[in-house]
Amino acid sequence: MRADSRCLICHAMQALRVFNRYMRSEEEKWTRLQDIMEVLKNLKWGLKPIEIAEIVYPEIEKIVGKRDVYEKEKKRSNDVALKMVERMERMIREATDPLFDAAKLAIAGNLIDLGTPNWNEETIYNKILEILEKPFGIDDFEQFKEELLKATNVLYLVDNAGEIVFDRFFIEIMKEYNKGLNVVVAAKSKPIINDATVEEAKEIMDGVAQVIDSGMKIPGTIVERGTDSFRRLFFESDIVISKGQGNFEGIIEEENERVYFLLTVKCPVVADFLGVPEGTMVFMKNRRKR
Amino acid sequence: MRADSRCLICHAMQALRVFNRYMRSEEEKWTRLQDIMEVLKNLKWGLKPIEIAEIVYPEIEKIVGKRDVYEKEKKRSNDVALKMVERMERMIREATDPLFDAAKLAIAGNLIDLGTPNWNEETIYNKILEILEKPFGIDDFEQFKEELLKATNVLYLVDNAGEIVFDRFFIEIMKEYNKGLNVVVAAKSKPIINDATVEEAKEIMDGVAQVIDSGMKIPGTIVERGTDSFRRLFFESDIVISKGQGNFEGIIEEENERVYFLLTVKCPVVADFLGVPEGTMVFMKNRRKR
Repeated sequence: MRADSRCLICHAMQALRVFNRYMRSEEEKWTRLQDIMEVLKNLKWGLKPIEIAEIVYPEIEKIVGKRDVYEKEKKRSNDVALKMVERMERMIREATDPLFDAAKLAIAGNLIDLGTPNWNEETIYNKILEILEKPFGIDDFEQFKEELLKATNVLYLVDNAGEIVFDRFFIEIMKEYNKGLNVVVAAKSKPIINDATVEEAKEIMDGVAQVIDSGMKIPGTIVERGTDSFRRLFFESDIVISKGQGNFEGIIEEENERVYFLLTVKCPVVADFLGVPEGTMVFMKNRRKR
Repeated sequence: MRADSRCLICHAMQALRVFNRYMRSEEEKWTRLQDIMEVLKNLKWGLKPIEIAEIVYPEIEKIVGKRDVYEKEKKRSNDVALKMVERMERMIREATDPLFDAAKLAIAGNLIDLGTPNWNEETIYNKILEILEKPFGIDDFEQFKEELLKATNVLYLVDNAGEIVFDRFFIEIMKEYNKGLNVVVAAKSKPIINDATVEEAKEIMDGVAQVIDSGMKIPGTIVERGTDSFRRLFFESDIVISKGQGNFEGIIEEENERVYFLLTVKCPVVADFLGVPEGTMVFMKNRRKR
């Protein structure tokens, strides 16, 4: 999926969001944002949005002098998400289709910015309940359910911190639905925006799934850049679950009909690409066959 | 009022909005937006937002090869506003305080983007009725009303096309409230964004007020750059009415307590400066005395 002009502006906004956390002086923010514009103005046409992030975030990190710019927010997100799963677990397990509700929770987790300071537990809880009532805008869930029952191996590509706690719960429910199922989770090599890293994923997935390094240093996945084991699992697993926009952007170009994309559409560029409104929850099977 | 980093991003967005009207190729928009970033990255700290526009818009005009980039939208705005005044005139004249309602309509005109294609007359009409119910967030109207009754000369600085039709109606009501009142309207020297130019203002104000050239080629007013007659009237009129954010930005620094600022707060930078939320309608007397 190709980036367009809106992605240039969005990355300037993302940079400013980080500067607002680390800088007090408005003049410093001004100058540093101009440094980011210097980078943006030299990017060649044809990149994917995640490739812009790959170039811009190291510059942001250099400027603020910190490798993991969302470290605190990621911890806070995980804490909030753990509280939410605790509160919702029983309701979902007793629902007509726990697999469906757990999938929806995992996709909803992508929509809520759990890292917001001063979050109010009740507000987030009610927001999630509200989201769970919304239908999928693209819905291949029934086909997934059939395939899952026959599957032996699932590769699960996680996205953000916070959300990953809901992913764990979804994986637990999947494994109860298909007792023999083996799930491997792939996470990012190093901190990038608020994506869960291998270390963070290992902590959350402990006792539920094996975690491997996808090889990605970008906020998404470009399969050809993956580690050997990641690429092997990507093409050999019975089902690949790709969470979030970043993984979607790169993987949508792969000819692998075993991939299911689970995401909330969070920007106009992806919305235009999929032909759905922003905010849509998507559970979509990849139609490109190998 | 000093611009901050958000103004850099906002002007990149404004440029893209114009490119979307004049360009089909996404690659061309990408490259041209990068040209605008080249300009933005060289702007020195300390400028006013209208001074950024002063530098960026000529570049935009050069790129799209058109001097008046919002020409069509301005015409459409005036047509819609004329229809609205036709429908509302009787209601406002029969209200408890026609002066108050006409002032509010003139401020509301700033909030609605009348230039949107495919506008629906009913939607806009209902939107205006809704806005007329909202109170001013900063309200010096009563003091204005008293001063207006004693005034002989008013200088009225107009802002956008469309809105200017509501300004004319407000001026008519002012002149009925104070029969001897003389009102002079000041408008921009040349087309800049969707501001009304002298020529456009003359057409609208015909038979209601004399129109002078403020001398401004920016989407606002910096008094020291004004024509001689503008500066004289600015300091000698009994009341100066300054419409919109652009005029506010520059004039707020003037020591002239005869100025009333009538505006809708349309961006976070002005909202922070005034300490009110975005969307607030403001009728504020300047407190800086000469």
